[in-house]
Amino acid sequence: MASQLDLIGGDYIAGISINPPTNSRVTSVYSEVQASRIDHTLPLPSVFKTPFKIIDGPPSSSAGHPEEIEKLFPNLFGQPSALLVPNQSNEVSSDQKLKIGVVLSGGQAPGGHNVICGIFDYLQEYARGSSLFGFRGGPAGIMKGKYIELTSEFVYPYRNQGGFDMICSGRDKIETPEQFKQAEETVTKMDLDGLVVIGGDDSNTNACLLAEHFRAKNMKTLVIGCPKTIDGDLKSKEVPTSFGFDTACKIYSEMIGNVMIDARSTGKYYHFVRLMGRAASHITLECALQTHPNITIIGEEVFEKKLTLKNVTDNIVDVIYKRAENGYNYGVILVPEGLIDFIPEVQQLISELNEVLAEGNVDEEGQWKKNLKKETLEIFEFLPQTIQEQLMLERDPHGNVQVAKIETEKMLIQMVETELEKKKTEGTYEREFMGKSHFFGYEGRCGLPTNFDATYCYALGYGAGSLLQSGKTGLISSVGNLAAPVEEWTVGGTALTSLMDVERRHGKFKPVIKKAMVELEGAPFKKFASQREEWALKNRYISPGPIQFKGPGSDARNHTLMLELGAQA
Amino acid sequence: MASQLDLIGGDYIAGISINPPTNSRVTSVYSEVQASRIDHTLPLPSVFKTPFKIIDGPPSSSAGHPEEIEKLFPNLFGQPSALLVPNQSNEVSSDQKLKIGVVLSGGQAPGGHNVICGIFDYLQEYARGSSLFGFRGGPAGIMKGKYIELTSEFVYPYRNQGGFDMICSGRDKIETPEQFKQAEETVTKMDLDGLVVIGGDDSNTNACLLAEHFRAKNMKTLVIGCPKTIDGDLKSKEVPTSFGFDTACKIYSEMIGNVMIDARSTGKYYHFVRLMGRAASHITLECALQTHPNITIIGEEVFEKKLTLKNVTDNIVDVIYKRAENGYNYGVILVPEGLIDFIPEVQQLISELNEVLAEGNVDEEGQWKKNLKKETLEIFEFLPQTIQEQLMLERDPHGNVQVAKIETEKMLIQMVETELEKKKTEGTYEREFMGKSHFFGYEGRCGLPTNFDATYCYALGYGAGSLLQSGKTGLISSVGNLAAPVEEWTVGGTALTSLMDVERRHGKFKPVIKKAMVELEGAPFKKFASQREEWALKNRYISPGPIQFKGPGSDARNHTLMLELGAQA
Repeated sequence: MASQLDLIGGDYIAGISINPPTNSRVTSVYSEVQASRIDHTLPLPSVFKTPFKIIDGPPSSSAGHPEEIEKLFPNLFGQPSALLVPNQSNEVSSDQKLKIGVVLSGGQAPGGHNVICGIFDYLQEYARGSSLFGFRGGPAGIMKGKYIELTSEFVYPYRNQGGFDMICSGRDKIETPEQFKQAEETVTKMDLDGLVVIGGDDSNTNACLLAEHFRAKNMKTLVIGCPKTIDGDLKSKEVPTSFGFDTACKIYSEMIGNVMIDARSTGKYYHFVRLMGRAASHITLECALQTHPNITIIGEEVFEKKLTLKNVTDNIVDVIYKRAENGYNYGVILVPEGLIDFIPEVQQLISELNEVLAEGNVDEEGQWKKNLKKETLEIFEFLPQTIQEQLMLERDPHGNVQVAKIETEKMLIQMVETELEKKKTEGTYEREFMGKSHFFGYEGRCGLPTNFDATYCYALGYGAGSLLQSGKTGLISSVGNLAAPVEEWTVGGTALTSLMDVERRHGKFKPVIKKAMVELEGAPFKKFASQREEWALKNRYISPGPIQFKGPGSDARNHTLMLELGAQA
Repeated sequence: MASQLDLIGGDYIAGISINPPTNSRVTSVYSEVQASRIDHTLPLPSVFKTPFKIIDGPPSSSAGHPEEIEKLFPNLFGQPSALLVPNQSNEVSSDQKLKIGVVLSGGQAPGGHNVICGIFDYLQEYARGSSLFGFRGGPAGIMKGKYIELTSEFVYPYRNQGGFDMICSGRDKIETPEQFKQAEETVTKMDLDGLVVIGGDDSNTNACLLAEHFRAKNMKTLVIGCPKTIDGDLKSKEVPTSFGFDTACKIYSEMIGNVMIDARSTGKYYHFVRLMGRAASHITLECALQTHPNITIIGEEVFEKKLTLKNVTDNIVDVIYKRAENGYNYGVILVPEGLIDFIPEVQQLISELNEVLAEGNVDEEGQWKKNLKKETLEIFEFLPQTIQEQLMLERDPHGNVQVAKIETEKMLIQMVETELEKKKTEGTYEREFMGKSHFFGYEGRCGLPTNFDATYCYALGYGAGSLLQSGKTGLISSVGNLAAPVEEWTVGGTALTSLMDVERRHGKFKPVIKKAMVELEGAPFKKFASQREEWALKNRYISPGPIQFKGPGSDARNHTLMLELGAQA
């Protein structure tokens, strides 16, 4: 039987025989914890325990330039939000059997499988006889018509499991008229009633463009988005968080907490931890709130305060210096992956370097440096030699400097080292400085989803199913009131156009869902800012420990979410 | 009240007022999981639930050169093992109040605090009114007479917690006659009845030398060792495992499992994971058994089979090539930190480089290379350029090449890349190869101990207390029958001299406890070897998930231990 996990010598082996044999978990062996999660029962918002109907809110606008958004989405602009409410009889349910497609888009985030399971179970419960198809390998699967029917047996081994391997993801975009045509052909051929796009800001923008396209062509295929990204930068009033953020931050925080106890026990290392999040620093901020490091660099603050690399370095050196006075010769420092992108002078340096390098006038004697502006040269000279070399040598196929390859945490260690050496020479500092670098990235994208992410995603999937069944399109599945017990969560949809603004690219307006950055006036940053001085000089480390699925801490929600909802984390 | 953790807004804050205020956890904030662990009740072997006595086994010998060991330990050599057995009345207990010292030596390992709590609770239960003193900062604390009295309030916040921060550790050794004299003075001044040394192979050798010294001087201070090291290389028939290994391997395996799911979901990266373990590859082997990676390099096998760096690289390239034929363009590869130390030709290279560099005849044109032997030069040329540079540039204060600084996993990625590029040029391989490097190290040394490590350490502490109370010295606390339920675990002590051999250093015999290496004929390696081909080409990934303290998987013991005990893991 497909739902049979055989117990073999303490390990669970997925002895699953599935046809077609394209299920990546067929050959998987399950750990005891993985196996126990498969049959974990997920609570649902109470609206799914009663008959319900969907009510519409007032017409919506956009996040900016409503007139431009209306031009880009003439058929969808102004759509109201939708909300599921209890009703005497289920007005959504019908005898119609639906054909629904689902696609995972972009980087992995814990919980993606549960969104799919949520859609699947919704259809089983409310539209029996419906079919769910998974497009393989992301949006390319839609364009190429590569899909697979998701059966009960097929989805079973992925329940509450991390990863995106059920149908895999991809980073292709449906952009050109030809690609839209391909997508149109696929969904027409499949006779799809609806499509669920699980992705980040770009993918949801794309989902909305598809919805508009299908509506404009009078096609029956509806499109609903779901908010996914561990970076936590896809959120709004009605979409309180993107899934995966909770799990990823807790995995990183477990590691940071362990490193903190190690720092305190050893008493001689400064650990520089780089964390994922190239655009926004939500992960770094959340991990800081969970663990209380000595120093946390938030990219948005660096940008807003126009800090230079020297400022950032000096701030670190200052704390190290003061800690030494208190007898602490160790510490933990969190750095967002995208730090460099937030420093204007570094951006300037990189653009000048790209020009110089393009001209190819780089001589051994360093005469080429005269082509840099004076201030730019100063920054270049301030960089550690290895980073200078990295900037000069490692370039992408277009000859451009590869900023993404710079190991920011190592760069900071070297700069701090240099400054402290100066102080030593001056006789103002006398301790040894030993920096250790860490990068926590891939470890967090595919962990077993926390109870929160597992439940949240399942509700998102149920919500997406109900929106499609009631004929909605161009909405993003929205589950709200997340500080309350699951039963009290709200379920509905938000007009994707209401999240959009436009950006001018190549002379044209492009619709974009603006990434939600860390707000310096927001509750999470303010809580952090009010405590960081204490964290810097005293040691207020918290070690969250490994994610628990049962017992104390297992239902905790992350600080960012709770603070943004006005609740105490 | 000292034992009161106040619940503040979802977090637990240790609102503990302790005198003297030298407790690192006074200023700590506890996570919910940490807090829940403090009051976790630990089961004890059943011998501690009844009156007991200690019985001696037959006289012991040594692991090698018994005549030399006897000369070095004339007062201790040949001591029998001790075993606690139930008895009509407790023959060990007495009215005597004991003064006991405890010291943590060397690197952190999860569970150290529980050993101390075990000793403390033993004394409370069986020798009421006794005192326990913690030497601060490792063996240096003994020499300098730096210690603190461990009270009930003091130890409380460390129960079941990771780290060594209760009294901290250190890497100093008590070696010279003067240092022995200092230690002697401290314990005499403190009027210590016993000392527990918690450490690895070196520290336990040192403990035995102290025991011999004290005995030779007719001092009353007894010395008992405890087996600590995440590396898992301190073990013997009677000491089945060192504490911390279980937790560290499970933390690393959680991360590896997550990276595996990521690799399978993304489908385009080869993840090279370097793991702690400079001398022996037990951690790497255990993590392989827990997670089933595509390739695992075991240092001991590389050494035994006299593999060259080229062989190791070719093996990896071969698997990547075959996987590509199966349609898999991704994978996970585990590498022990100490790999390079196991490759004889690299050792040769390093020693020649050290000589060349010492002479200082390194010219820009590379004429210096002529001073290397032909085969040595070949190896040097085979190394990626960045590694060549690292070898030439980064040297320790003595001018020696710093092998420890080489990031082995990055080196392997570069070598594999180079070989695959060659194949591409030849037209025999056409896929992209993208390697990602990881180092899992500090994250594993200070995590919350698993249920196994927490319980094992507590029993080791209880055992150490009972051995001291019954007048034993020069033994290592030994808890056995670990595959059985905790109640059936055996408790006793093993003569430290029985674990020893001698090494000749500077013309003198030095006693050493030989590090236990991975045995190619041992059950763990054999199980691995019998399955690795399947793991290489098919995907049998297991993702163990985060360590659980309750529910499924929470009482699992590691594979190495269970296989060595002849039980199924």
